[in-house]
Amino acid sequence: MASMRVYLAGPDVFLPDPLARAAALKAICARHGLVGVSPLDTLEGGDLPEWSRLDEAYRIALRNEAHIAGCAALVANLTPFRGPSADPGTVFELGYMRALGRPVFGWSNCAEPFAARSRAFCAGATVQPDGSWRDADGLLLEDFPGLTDNLMIDGAIVASGGHLVRHAVPLPQTWTDLAAFEDCIAAVARALAP
Amino acid sequence: MASMRVYLAGPDVFLPDPLARAAALKAICARHGLVGVSPLDTLEGGDLPEWSRLDEAYRIALRNEAHIAGCAALVANLTPFRGPSADPGTVFELGYMRALGRPVFGWSNCAEPFAARSRAFCAGATVQPDGSWRDADGLLLEDFPGLTDNLMIDGAIVASGGHLVRHAVPLPQTWTDLAAFEDCIAAVARALAP
Repeated sequence: MASMRVYLAGPDVFLPDPLARAAALKAICARHGLVGVSPLDTLEGGDLPEWSRLDEAYRIALRNEAHIAGCAALVANLTPFRGPSADPGTVFELGYMRALGRPVFGWSNCAEPFAARSRAFCAGATVQPDGSWRDADGLLLEDFPGLTDNLMIDGAIVASGGHLVRHAVPLPQTWTDLAAFEDCIAAVARALAP
Repeated sequence: MASMRVYLAGPDVFLPDPLARAAALKAICARHGLVGVSPLDTLEGGDLPEWSRLDEAYRIALRNEAHIAGCAALVANLTPFRGPSADPGTVFELGYMRALGRPVFGWSNCAEPFAARSRAFCAGATVQPDGSWRDADGLLLEDFPGLTDNLMIDGAIVASGGHLVRHAVPLPQTWTDLAAFEDCIAAVARALAP
């Protein structure tokens, strides 16, 4: 059963009622025979005693790393967060699980590819003679067809045997619609099936 | 000597002359007895034959993962990139190396803490009765004193025995000033010294 634990990475912890959100995500996992693990969960066995001297932020970071290490897969909410890319905490955790060699999955309530989103976000971006785009600081905009986010993110998901689900969700439902999440969890269940 | 290889994560690859930038970073590493490894380097031994059927973005992702796995430490350019946080590819790579159990370091040409940057970026953010801040979507702004970025990033650097260097660099020099990078590389050299 421990092999069916799935870490739920995402900025969902910043929502107005994060415990209700975690419960909703876990209920969907349970319907697919999986155990959703939220960053808000207490750690099985509790925090390590030596963490007690650390500031809260550092304790949370170590606890989340331990949660990830205790899961068989990771599912990341990659919905764009305060800019063209996913939440950085989520992206860190995706990289962490990828290095552990276990499958990583992603879902997003935005269907627009990363390149188009980046151009829309960078107000001063201009097209260059070679067709590439650069922002107002002169930095290149990644422009690989169809990617969901930075290539390390898409690359890790594909190489790990994971799956990416993108839905075009109207803006007001960005942080409430869970259809893409459920599609993603169904893919996790198929991948982890014995 | 292989143990002194340091992976140079950062949006530096998007600069107008990325090879010149990589050379400048490597020259600083060499002054401190380290071998800087750029994401633009060819892989020792070359790409794996099975990567040839992959699109370029996916080949780059696998090559970067292999570069990281071949290094003793990672140094991340955490200068804010198109929003309040660091470049997502860089953050992914930081998480990847952290999970490998090796030290991760960060530097930034912005000295303003993450919480203040996030408030400045989120135009519609409002303070709540309990003193916390929420953005226009109602999502909480992380507000831990003094952190450089999302707590997973600061947490990983501190827990790994790494070091974070922040300099207040005037905006026009954001992508050219390498003093914070050199301070960071000096810290890496001390940490990796036999």
